[in-house]
Amino acid sequence: MSLLYQRVAFIGLGLIASSMAHAIRRAGLAAQTTGTARSLETRAVAAEIGLVDQVFDTSAEAVAGADLVVLCVPVGAMETVARDIAPHLARGATITDVGSVKQAVIDAVAPHLPAEAHFIPGHPLAGTEHSGPKSGFAELFDNRWCILTPPSGVDPQALERLTLFWRGLGANVDLMDPPHHDLVLAVTSHTPHLIAYTMVGVADDLRRVTDSEVIKYSAAGFRDFTRIAASDPTMWRDVFLTNKDATLEILGRFTEELFALQRAIRQGDGDLLHGYFSRTRAIRRGIIEAGQDTDAPDFGRVQKKQD
Amino acid sequence: MSLLYQRVAFIGLGLIASSMAHAIRRAGLAAQTTGTARSLETRAVAAEIGLVDQVFDTSAEAVAGADLVVLCVPVGAMETVARDIAPHLARGATITDVGSVKQAVIDAVAPHLPAEAHFIPGHPLAGTEHSGPKSGFAELFDNRWCILTPPSGVDPQALERLTLFWRGLGANVDLMDPPHHDLVLAVTSHTPHLIAYTMVGVADDLRRVTDSEVIKYSAAGFRDFTRIAASDPTMWRDVFLTNKDATLEILGRFTEELFALQRAIRQGDGDLLHGYFSRTRAIRRGIIEAGQDTDAPDFGRVQKKQD
Repeated sequence: MSLLYQRVAFIGLGLIASSMAHAIRRAGLAAQTTGTARSLETRAVAAEIGLVDQVFDTSAEAVAGADLVVLCVPVGAMETVARDIAPHLARGATITDVGSVKQAVIDAVAPHLPAEAHFIPGHPLAGTEHSGPKSGFAELFDNRWCILTPPSGVDPQALERLTLFWRGLGANVDLMDPPHHDLVLAVTSHTPHLIAYTMVGVADDLRRVTDSEVIKYSAAGFRDFTRIAASDPTMWRDVFLTNKDATLEILGRFTEELFALQRAIRQGDGDLLHGYFSRTRAIRRGIIEAGQDTDAPDFGRVQKKQD
Repeated sequence: MSLLYQRVAFIGLGLIASSMAHAIRRAGLAAQTTGTARSLETRAVAAEIGLVDQVFDTSAEAVAGADLVVLCVPVGAMETVARDIAPHLARGATITDVGSVKQAVIDAVAPHLPAEAHFIPGHPLAGTEHSGPKSGFAELFDNRWCILTPPSGVDPQALERLTLFWRGLGANVDLMDPPHHDLVLAVTSHTPHLIAYTMVGVADDLRRVTDSEVIKYSAAGFRDFTRIAASDPTMWRDVFLTNKDATLEILGRFTEELFALQRAIRQGDGDLLHGYFSRTRAIRRGIIEAGQDTDAPDFGRVQKKQD
């Protein structure tokens, strides 16, 4: 893999930025990396573990001389960051981000950037429930998808370079227009997260079933929801506030379907339930075949007996 | 581990029965195992791979001389099986089952069994999305919980022996009364499954987002739902038909909470969302600490790049 950028600057040093930093080193994609984060503690940890070559206290310092700037902050913080870095960007720099919503990021960031900056929004579809500068690992993006939503009139060379960069990080790259991205993600990510948070909230809140029962007996399905519902609260608050319309549309479809199944349960309509439950198996097979999940029993997480 | 039963008979040879058969051999818990299944193909596969010592065409033959009979069929098939085996049971045999609902199994099975049989319903909280006689593995129950719901007046020795048996299979054993079991499982398993099925159904059904998009971009949350929603349709139909009241109660609570979050999204109430999303992290920590899930990033299922 060849060198693609001289200096890559990360604004925000959480799971995605730290995984990118590791993957950049793995593939030798950049001569130098810099970074900053709002919290002093995050900056101190990042410096201590040598996550990037230089950790700065301000985003102005971090982006100086960078030919690629990656915004890795929650969607709600994008506008402030864009305003802060704009005067300090190197001429002809490419600016990208990793936010889970794209139209809102474009609306927040684009107006503040200088005309000669190449702004190419992006979203790597990968993650774990862990956060912070220590949570990253080089393999996070391997065989996952990164969606770029370049504006019309994007510089073809800048786009080509960013595409090669993401491939170098291990990902496959797709292009999409921002509203379609936001709808697709409302289906595959945002609504599932809201539902998981809700289910965990219900379990936590019941009087007649104790938390310790919920925890002990979670292996029968519930625990998969808790992993999703352990994701970063600030990031997810911003996702729902900024992808409101698409999320509400999919939620509406979801409750409609849920009520139909609820009615079938109440009426004892076994045929409807069996038909519904059979239909959903095909998508699972598709996901395994596309290499987006493992077919290992229980994700291969069966543990050794602890005695 | 010492020999606990002379002859263990399985009625039904799917994931749970086949995992029990492997775990029995691992620990040397029974002198002999037998089994039968309704489908000729399942019986042929089980015989071919030597899953149990003897595969029979009828449940009457399978249970003859068995001191432990394990009913491993969908809840809706329990009554027929109980009626079939009752005249052929050995004197003093223990009858148990692995059904996901307990009160309905008791109502279906108990009336048909001879008075001297020891009927001790059970439910191992373990599983994968795979089905059939080849899907079992000896480690499935390791460090998982098995809930037994013995009737009042149960023979203490029969209960003690079955408890040791499940411990020998790797599980921890708890006792519970049947209605409480059904409520706990409605929270930790049945409602999560229904919700996962619904979400996958919605995704499958949308016109504006294609199936191939759903599949490609599933790693951002959706794929965890598809694993749950790939479980056996017949088993799950029977669960919802037979644990109707508890499931409808929890579903009611779920939609109430979901509407509150939906309203917060519509009104842009970020504080409510952030508070809700923060609260649910504690349960996740409890589950990891209780050894009921792995803390490995992405369940450790990150794949090597396929090029």
